[in-house]
Amino acid sequence: MRELRKDPITQRWILISTDFSPEGPHDQACPFCPGSEDLTPKEIYRLNDNKNGDWSTRVIPNRYPFFRIEGELDPRPQGMFDVMNGIGAHEIVIDTPTHDDWADMPEAQLTKVFQTYQARLKDLRGDPRFKYIMVCKNHHITKDAVKHQHSHIMAYPFIPMRLEEELTGTREHYERKERCLYCDIISEEKKDGRRVIVETGKYIAFVPFFAKYSFEFWVLPKEHIHDFAADGQNLGELASIIKNVMARVKEHLKNPEWSLVIHHSPNSPHDERKYHWHFEVRPKIYEGLGFEWGSGFFVTYTSPEKSAATLRGTKYNNNNEK
Amino acid sequence: MRELRKDPITQRWILISTDFSPEGPHDQACPFCPGSEDLTPKEIYRLNDNKNGDWSTRVIPNRYPFFRIEGELDPRPQGMFDVMNGIGAHEIVIDTPTHDDWADMPEAQLTKVFQTYQARLKDLRGDPRFKYIMVCKNHHITKDAVKHQHSHIMAYPFIPMRLEEELTGTREHYERKERCLYCDIISEEKKDGRRVIVETGKYIAFVPFFAKYSFEFWVLPKEHIHDFAADGQNLGELASIIKNVMARVKEHLKNPEWSLVIHHSPNSPHDERKYHWHFEVRPKIYEGLGFEWGSGFFVTYTSPEKSAATLRGTKYNNNNEK
Repeated sequence: MRELRKDPITQRWILISTDFSPEGPHDQACPFCPGSEDLTPKEIYRLNDNKNGDWSTRVIPNRYPFFRIEGELDPRPQGMFDVMNGIGAHEIVIDTPTHDDWADMPEAQLTKVFQTYQARLKDLRGDPRFKYIMVCKNHHITKDAVKHQHSHIMAYPFIPMRLEEELTGTREHYERKERCLYCDIISEEKKDGRRVIVETGKYIAFVPFFAKYSFEFWVLPKEHIHDFAADGQNLGELASIIKNVMARVKEHLKNPEWSLVIHHSPNSPHDERKYHWHFEVRPKIYEGLGFEWGSGFFVTYTSPEKSAATLRGTKYNNNNEK
Repeated sequence: MRELRKDPITQRWILISTDFSPEGPHDQACPFCPGSEDLTPKEIYRLNDNKNGDWSTRVIPNRYPFFRIEGELDPRPQGMFDVMNGIGAHEIVIDTPTHDDWADMPEAQLTKVFQTYQARLKDLRGDPRFKYIMVCKNHHITKDAVKHQHSHIMAYPFIPMRLEEELTGTREHYERKERCLYCDIISEEKKDGRRVIVETGKYIAFVPFFAKYSFEFWVLPKEHIHDFAADGQNLGELASIIKNVMARVKEHLKNPEWSLVIHHSPNSPHDERKYHWHFEVRPKIYEGLGFEWGSGFFVTYTSPEKSAATLRGTKYNNNNEK
């Protein structure tokens, strides 16, 4: 069963995907290592190593996909409710031929991961059934998952709720001010400085003033670029800042679980002035108290200022916070 | 530090509350048992046992509150951002003098828990600084928390985002149809029947068609009642259905962690036709895959139909779902 059902209260699509197993079984031998290529579903894409012709990254269909690529959406009523088929794509990017994580792999390899994302984004956007392509990654979130570093690319037949909210927020800001809201936030965070973790010529990593989680941080291009796939000139520098900040997470937070989601423009024609692509990363340190799902209310137990100081590796002196 | 900061993108308030400890230390002796009253902060309210004059429930300030009750909100700008002080209330209800949980305690005791909620709701609504009173409860969510069953009552100086979304959704439905959206959903769920767990004369418990989590369920009055505090005539019957369904959770899901949030009308004058109070309960069976926080997209791994069958304790036969 793989069905999209709409919450008639919040207008949110929910996927019922019952043959996905979050603790899916996998073979003892690592199926993502070179030499085990025939243990995975048929390859969709690969990036070859320039030197010796071996692969640097591979893209395969997820064995337990949220969405199926074959078929029609067939949107229809069911009693008072709205449903459609769970059509989309769910691919796995094998980030590296080795067992390095993002904090340890060479910048050149991380650059190839981002090149692979861009190649898949451009291809999947050619399918008119898909409204949004999400790139995300979990670092050791599910304990039985394959440990070999990999990312998820999901093509959605709708725009996920969180993106809809951000697109609405940035459009309203633009209409009032003729400026990008994310550009304004970057400017404010640079001016204040206390929440900045690291900055390069073209990118900045900071804990936002209004972080919903302890140690949550964002990485953004300082220049206004609406879409990850449109940010093609600086992938080496992007790899450098991401590796830098992931090494800080690993060192200063003791290699926690973390999740990463790339936020960028939807597939449909879109006013490029009104969105700004970025990474959002959530190191999983506290669980929350259990009511966030039912209230939409978030409490952060470490101030964004202290979170940023911890990630920078600098001392934090504030009498108001232990 | 206890500061509310507004996300300028989604217009959501986030609380930075750094002296709250989700794994707060507590004494070895249970501080919530009779005889240990002087281990807790000064009592706000108690419901006495009718027979022997001992207490049946007690309400105390949370020792590690999200919000402080003293002070002014003082809303102000900080650079481009909006902040205000974390003013509100955060009370703990000690649900019972014993170590019974909700599946085991007598219905008469659970009735007293709900009477206590109503008494505190009515009192806290007298404070014009508070815009919404949330009642919620965690069953063994935080491993170091006091095991003696207790609930949280939180008075917010704003309406939490999830309630705002629901109020908007139900208002829009009412404006189109002249009907309560929750009344329509109850009618649809009764007609279909597959997702109903248990029904009494005045209440119904079901897994909603569009559940965001496996085994998520709601309990609602079948009659249109907008507010929990306005539902005073049937608390014994409410206790009966809640105990019934919590016993099913304990038996059929093997006593999992769960969280419960009461959803009801905000404190401000409100059109009573346009909201319908209810319990939402989330047994914590799967963690999710880590990207829900960053996408607002939810995948349910067990169909609502199978979740309901499991909670009823009935067989589920469907070739589309293992």
